[in-house]
Amino acid sequence: MNAALPSSALAPDPAPAPRRQVPPALLAALRERFGDRCSTAAAVRDQHGRDESPYPLTPPDAVVFCESTQDVADAVALASAHAVPVIPFGVGSSLEGHLLAVQGGISLDLGRMTRIVAVNPEDLTVTVQAGVTREQLNREIRDTGLFFPIDPGANASLGGMAATRASGTNAVRYGTMRENVLGLQVVTATGEVIQTGTRAKKSAAGYDLTRLFVGSEGTLGVMTEITLKLYPLPEAVSAAVCHFPSIDAAVRTTIQIIQMGVPIARCELLDAHAIRAVNAHSKLSLREAPMLLMEFHGSPAGVQEQAQTVQAIASDCGGEAFEWASTPEARTRLWTARHQAYFAALQTRPGCRCLSTDTCVPISALAESINASVAEAEAAGLPYWIVGHVGDGNFHLSYLLDPDSPAEVATAERLSEQMVRRAIRLQGTCTGEHGIGLHKMGYLVEEAGPAAVALMRSIKQALDPKNIMNPGKVLAP
Amino acid sequence: MNAALPSSALAPDPAPAPRRQVPPALLAALRERFGDRCSTAAAVRDQHGRDESPYPLTPPDAVVFCESTQDVADAVALASAHAVPVIPFGVGSSLEGHLLAVQGGISLDLGRMTRIVAVNPEDLTVTVQAGVTREQLNREIRDTGLFFPIDPGANASLGGMAATRASGTNAVRYGTMRENVLGLQVVTATGEVIQTGTRAKKSAAGYDLTRLFVGSEGTLGVMTEITLKLYPLPEAVSAAVCHFPSIDAAVRTTIQIIQMGVPIARCELLDAHAIRAVNAHSKLSLREAPMLLMEFHGSPAGVQEQAQTVQAIASDCGGEAFEWASTPEARTRLWTARHQAYFAALQTRPGCRCLSTDTCVPISALAESINASVAEAEAAGLPYWIVGHVGDGNFHLSYLLDPDSPAEVATAERLSEQMVRRAIRLQGTCTGEHGIGLHKMGYLVEEAGPAAVALMRSIKQALDPKNIMNPGKVLAP
Repeated sequence: MNAALPSSALAPDPAPAPRRQVPPALLAALRERFGDRCSTAAAVRDQHGRDESPYPLTPPDAVVFCESTQDVADAVALASAHAVPVIPFGVGSSLEGHLLAVQGGISLDLGRMTRIVAVNPEDLTVTVQAGVTREQLNREIRDTGLFFPIDPGANASLGGMAATRASGTNAVRYGTMRENVLGLQVVTATGEVIQTGTRAKKSAAGYDLTRLFVGSEGTLGVMTEITLKLYPLPEAVSAAVCHFPSIDAAVRTTIQIIQMGVPIARCELLDAHAIRAVNAHSKLSLREAPMLLMEFHGSPAGVQEQAQTVQAIASDCGGEAFEWASTPEARTRLWTARHQAYFAALQTRPGCRCLSTDTCVPISALAESINASVAEAEAAGLPYWIVGHVGDGNFHLSYLLDPDSPAEVATAERLSEQMVRRAIRLQGTCTGEHGIGLHKMGYLVEEAGPAAVALMRSIKQALDPKNIMNPGKVLAP
Repeated sequence: MNAALPSSALAPDPAPAPRRQVPPALLAALRERFGDRCSTAAAVRDQHGRDESPYPLTPPDAVVFCESTQDVADAVALASAHAVPVIPFGVGSSLEGHLLAVQGGISLDLGRMTRIVAVNPEDLTVTVQAGVTREQLNREIRDTGLFFPIDPGANASLGGMAATRASGTNAVRYGTMRENVLGLQVVTATGEVIQTGTRAKKSAAGYDLTRLFVGSEGTLGVMTEITLKLYPLPEAVSAAVCHFPSIDAAVRTTIQIIQMGVPIARCELLDAHAIRAVNAHSKLSLREAPMLLMEFHGSPAGVQEQAQTVQAIASDCGGEAFEWASTPEARTRLWTARHQAYFAALQTRPGCRCLSTDTCVPISALAESINASVAEAEAAGLPYWIVGHVGDGNFHLSYLLDPDSPAEVATAERLSEQMVRRAIRLQGTCTGEHGIGLHKMGYLVEEAGPAAVALMRSIKQALDPKNIMNPGKVLAP
């Protein structure tokens, strides 16, 4: 095992390859090029050696604060010359250990690349630097009457969101980063700058490099600029909560909403544990029973039509009357509470860490997937909570565990593995939106099969022959 | 030049690499494995040596009629052993020469692989063999209340549609094959069978192999099964035509429809030349003036709301009153006429061939793109006609030319080149939906840049080191 990893029962799987040497000549060259924007201070390295995943601190050898594409290109070219890993870093909100320097190397902090490069409201597109966060973007384009819907909860950077193929609450209507990135500027493993895609809405010109980089988790190149689709702010927005006698009833409601083709904008499940946590954290008084938190976008008549359809379905499934959050303030309060569920849940068990699952299944399999997972978690007795983008068949059952208890870690791992294997058997995926990162590399092989993973590996080898782009993630060393 | 190519002024660009030898041992092995499903008859080879492109007949050395994935895998494995090209063949509706055996080799006819493998109406998904056509699919799933919207006009095979990242009239609302393929079964260049994607609506598991194969034009592998998204048949459908005093007025209407976010299902432009041709061919009496042919999908109230908004925009731009096609029969008649525009136009000039352009630009640039192209075509005096999926910024200005007239061919090539360069300058693409094929390989380099094309080439080299998968297309030899 790696000496740099503090002891913990939670560790990447499989064990990472050893850290590589960072030669003094590389550090000297980086210092010469970047001055005090290249740091080896312990505090800075530590800050870049963790993310929101439960894995132990694993700092890089140095951090370079990039302010331009040229900075990124130069840093990568230098790292490439010395065959040293580079790890792109946005705001550090990864849940899967993407930012940990498991083989050492240089963290490229893109957090200063926060320029909106071009807004084209008449084309419903925007081009941003990779360090722009989704909240910044929506603030800066507010007066165009447009918005960017993808919302993974965290105020993530758009580079990070593209790298993990993020989605979140609005994806049921607007799609994921896969559907909403039109083009990219990418620094390749040799430090070359390429452009993928165009600003046209569609294209049949050559291999889809855009979608190859989206979701590649920093392992094929560093995205420096991202061109995104925007959407007109809906004329009318309504949000409502609806409580159900059981998780199953809420899930059955969701399945029918989707099967009927209702263009619902958000359809989120919270279980009683999650509601208890957000009530305490956000000073709300929601009933502690399984709940759907829904939002409808459209014309006033369209929103009303959708809401009526959904109310009828919910009522058939045993749901209570809708409680409407009709003012923007009331809506914001609900969604903020939802977005803080992760931190709210962590606070319910001081000192705990959270192992979050992320399976996604075809919608008809959602009830089986959730019900069996809940039964297993209940039987195991480990504290857990559920939130879910159930409209997409995606939910997060998260275990709250003592990271120093091998027994609890083993239980959580076993439960998670059962969930993943069930999801794969149901023709779903081990990760709907968080990515493979450090811990699901074995599941990727189970899901995609060895031949498909070998093909991924041959692409990695072709694009990054020195294996310097965020090594040790996605594909097992 | 290649001796097998009949003389014509229209030829692939650049000149193809020489045909490779097909050793008798390979033909013997194919005959042993496939019996009379392996044919070297001239008529069969000729039938597989052309498509709807204007390029001269270029037959393969043999044709294998595949009936299963195993057939494909075995044929590819044999071809690989002899380093002989394989060219997947669906129904032959390519417009870009994808099916021509420019380096010789084996045509793999998938036209007998027409099985619907699995319909999952409750998940809005279907899995089909690659030879299923879109019309067959929609016929066979009719009683589920669902449909597959992607409609490139031709009754193409779904394998061919996926291979070229096809789209067509419904893409403005439902997206292209890029957005609508969930997963694939693919035979790789070594004859191995892999599965990409899952039936889950979204996934963040590893590299997006699905979208890498979609649009790869048979150059990375042979798709044998395709899992697609389906959509509930809309409760209400209305179609209307609206005539305009100029192409510009129709285009300005379109731009405003898109910018306002109206979820229009189809928004097609036909110019007076196209209408004249379809009137003659389909015995219609549409006014021979620029026209938008539109369709609205939704609830009855939603459709009415959309139509009112669009009528107001059209009227502001000088459009005449809508003429409604409210019965299914009237709608079918209009769309059939639209779909036959290509053949209708060919008939207006006996013996001619059609060089079809396919640029796609950001919607705000559509007026400039079309207006300048029309002015150039008028000035050149070559017969032309326009249809366009203008809601997506994509249109086809097609020249009707005498293939034996080097002057006409040169004029059409020059006009086409001007259009493509303008589209690229406007941050658009040389091909919205037809693909690169034989003739746009140079344009791909201009559009994507040499470094991005070099990266595509390294992927091709990694996945197909013997260059046997439909060689000579997409990436110049």
